[in-house]
Amino acid sequence: MPSARTSPSFETPEYLVRIARTRAAMAEAGLDAIVVSDPSNMGWLTGYDGWSFYVHQAAVLTMEGEPLWWGRGMDRAGALRTAFMEEDRLFGYADSYVQNPDAHPMEDLARLLASHGLERARIGVELDNYYYSAKADAVLRKALPEARWEDATGLVNWQRAVKSELEIVYMRRAAAIVEAMHARILELAEPGMAKNELVAEIFATGIRGADGHWGDYPAIVPMAPSGLDATAPHLTWDDTPLRPNEATFFEIAGAHRRYHCPQSRTLFFGRPPDHYRAAEAAVGEATEAALAAIRPGALCEDVARAFNAALRKAGFEKDSRAGYSIGLSYPPDWGERTMSLRAGDRTVLEPGMAFHFMPALWLEDGGIEITEPVLVTGTGCERLTGTPGNIYVK
Amino acid sequence: MPSARTSPSFETPEYLVRIARTRAAMAEAGLDAIVVSDPSNMGWLTGYDGWSFYVHQAAVLTMEGEPLWWGRGMDRAGALRTAFMEEDRLFGYADSYVQNPDAHPMEDLARLLASHGLERARIGVELDNYYYSAKADAVLRKALPEARWEDATGLVNWQRAVKSELEIVYMRRAAAIVEAMHARILELAEPGMAKNELVAEIFATGIRGADGHWGDYPAIVPMAPSGLDATAPHLTWDDTPLRPNEATFFEIAGAHRRYHCPQSRTLFFGRPPDHYRAAEAAVGEATEAALAAIRPGALCEDVARAFNAALRKAGFEKDSRAGYSIGLSYPPDWGERTMSLRAGDRTVLEPGMAFHFMPALWLEDGGIEITEPVLVTGTGCERLTGTPGNIYVK
Repeated sequence: MPSARTSPSFETPEYLVRIARTRAAMAEAGLDAIVVSDPSNMGWLTGYDGWSFYVHQAAVLTMEGEPLWWGRGMDRAGALRTAFMEEDRLFGYADSYVQNPDAHPMEDLARLLASHGLERARIGVELDNYYYSAKADAVLRKALPEARWEDATGLVNWQRAVKSELEIVYMRRAAAIVEAMHARILELAEPGMAKNELVAEIFATGIRGADGHWGDYPAIVPMAPSGLDATAPHLTWDDTPLRPNEATFFEIAGAHRRYHCPQSRTLFFGRPPDHYRAAEAAVGEATEAALAAIRPGALCEDVARAFNAALRKAGFEKDSRAGYSIGLSYPPDWGERTMSLRAGDRTVLEPGMAFHFMPALWLEDGGIEITEPVLVTGTGCERLTGTPGNIYVK
Repeated sequence: MPSARTSPSFETPEYLVRIARTRAAMAEAGLDAIVVSDPSNMGWLTGYDGWSFYVHQAAVLTMEGEPLWWGRGMDRAGALRTAFMEEDRLFGYADSYVQNPDAHPMEDLARLLASHGLERARIGVELDNYYYSAKADAVLRKALPEARWEDATGLVNWQRAVKSELEIVYMRRAAAIVEAMHARILELAEPGMAKNELVAEIFATGIRGADGHWGDYPAIVPMAPSGLDATAPHLTWDDTPLRPNEATFFEIAGAHRRYHCPQSRTLFFGRPPDHYRAAEAAVGEATEAALAAIRPGALCEDVARAFNAALRKAGFEKDSRAGYSIGLSYPPDWGERTMSLRAGDRTVLEPGMAFHFMPALWLEDGGIEITEPVLVTGTGCERLTGTPGNIYVK
């Protein structure tokens, strides 16, 4: 038996259900095997949890038996401690393959696949994932010239869309954590405070956790731009002091056992200008309209349509998507990279799906982010946090 | 003129020097242009700094003129705030390309390259990088069938190996930050303390900074495994309490303006067992031997040889590399992915290179990590921190 960690996130039967669901999708796609490089997908299928995705690694799932874990030799010990499989399903490659232009780890994976009878198999690979490089793909194809390769990008991600009961428990814990993080921001932020001092407190609050549940690292660091920097959505921080009469938005997430609950809020010291108040009111109305459209059977694009109609009525436009699916995640993205709340996404909503509804507006002189993590219920939609939905004014 | 951030990390002339150095390497490789997807390379060439690398983006450098920044439309505002180039060199793509299986951002990049006369150019791409997926490569090649594609993985990374004076200033600030982080661990850690509580303090200390210099986010979160979890190098944390008679190692980095100074230490509550003390002594002696071998003109593998000979003499073996190049970095890796201190790496050491000398030993029942960030000087090697080099015993 593998030596488990003190407290595994899920028991083996939950992984077996996930694997069965994934195999059904593989059968439908006509695949004999998939090579899963996305750490979120690896973790969801096997339990493996380690910051080792900066080297090539994968889970391999065929139509029978436990998945294989494959990665750097030294990380096999981490797989032994975190993945549910038996020790003989864990394979490590030699350290000389690490970041060495003369030897690619995929040569080793090709041998492993061949030794499992997959030389001529139809194999799915995640072609558009951070952790499956163009070179990895080329080396693997060259080493197994008789295999047939298919694009399986998103195949596992889509199986993750509807959450289990325990996954929802973890997302609620993450929600309590992000609530605590926003409460701490409101408590501590003062004009003159250096931005990094505030971000240090946000980070620490998130990792301490809430309601007795520990905080995991978020897949994206806190984003907290002020003033003109807040016209840009993804800037991080420096030590510039918070200033009176300036908006700062905080795009942050609570995380527990790799499950994320993102939520953004905007803070203003002083009296917000009228166009901020107008944007706040527009976002509030459009959010109500959008969340009212979330129910089982509705389409992702229905939610976007309700949102955009209400926003337009209030005199604003938003040309980016109004939200995305959330759940288990690793850097660099806390989204699941499947459903988007935008025109053209005709995915049918089901109970147990979770979204970050993300009606951010970037203005000429700053940004307004007042966002809602939500769960699709049996009859409609539930907000995962009770964070107040207005601009924080101090 | 672009509106700069409050305090840019480098003035434009430093970027021009970097670009000239990169163009010399491009000329040697016979390239007309490079598409740079690695955020560390993008930042080093242009100053661009944002957590937007979860969508496709790149800097494009040809043999003339300022680089082009290309990315998601909403992130163009961030490029305007952080990159040194004029506004007309910044190009954003429509949001409908984001995570949409029916439309790939590389179709947009192909049009941009063509509009700059590169349809038949010889173009280098970073084939083995996290942020250049197999799909991105396939779409780009298909859209520009007459271009000639070359593997430029590492081309920019190698130009980063020797640091400028100001880069060294930033690395020294990062070194002061990691020293402060280790001092805080020694001050706070107690048996019974939940691991996540300690990690929250480590993170906050790193972001607060040291000596009046703010802390940036590290490219890897703090790794802090205890006991049997410490037999694995890359596990993160949960809320398990620190226990008496158990070792915990802390693999952490200080960061300032994206420059990293990693350093690891091991903590033991109680009297460390004899085999820990033996490993500590072996690592100490082998570290002295290795650092004595670091000087301009020596090869990377000379350092590894000196280290391994001393380690073997003390009765230990290490089969993974003993260190790697460090500097500017973004997640998921704080290494530069060029030089490794291991057999076969015949790179000649030069003044201004920086390494994380990383003589970690993973034992049957735990791990010992006592590591040293170092700078190659005109005559030898300088330790970047004064952190004590023994097992912390409390």
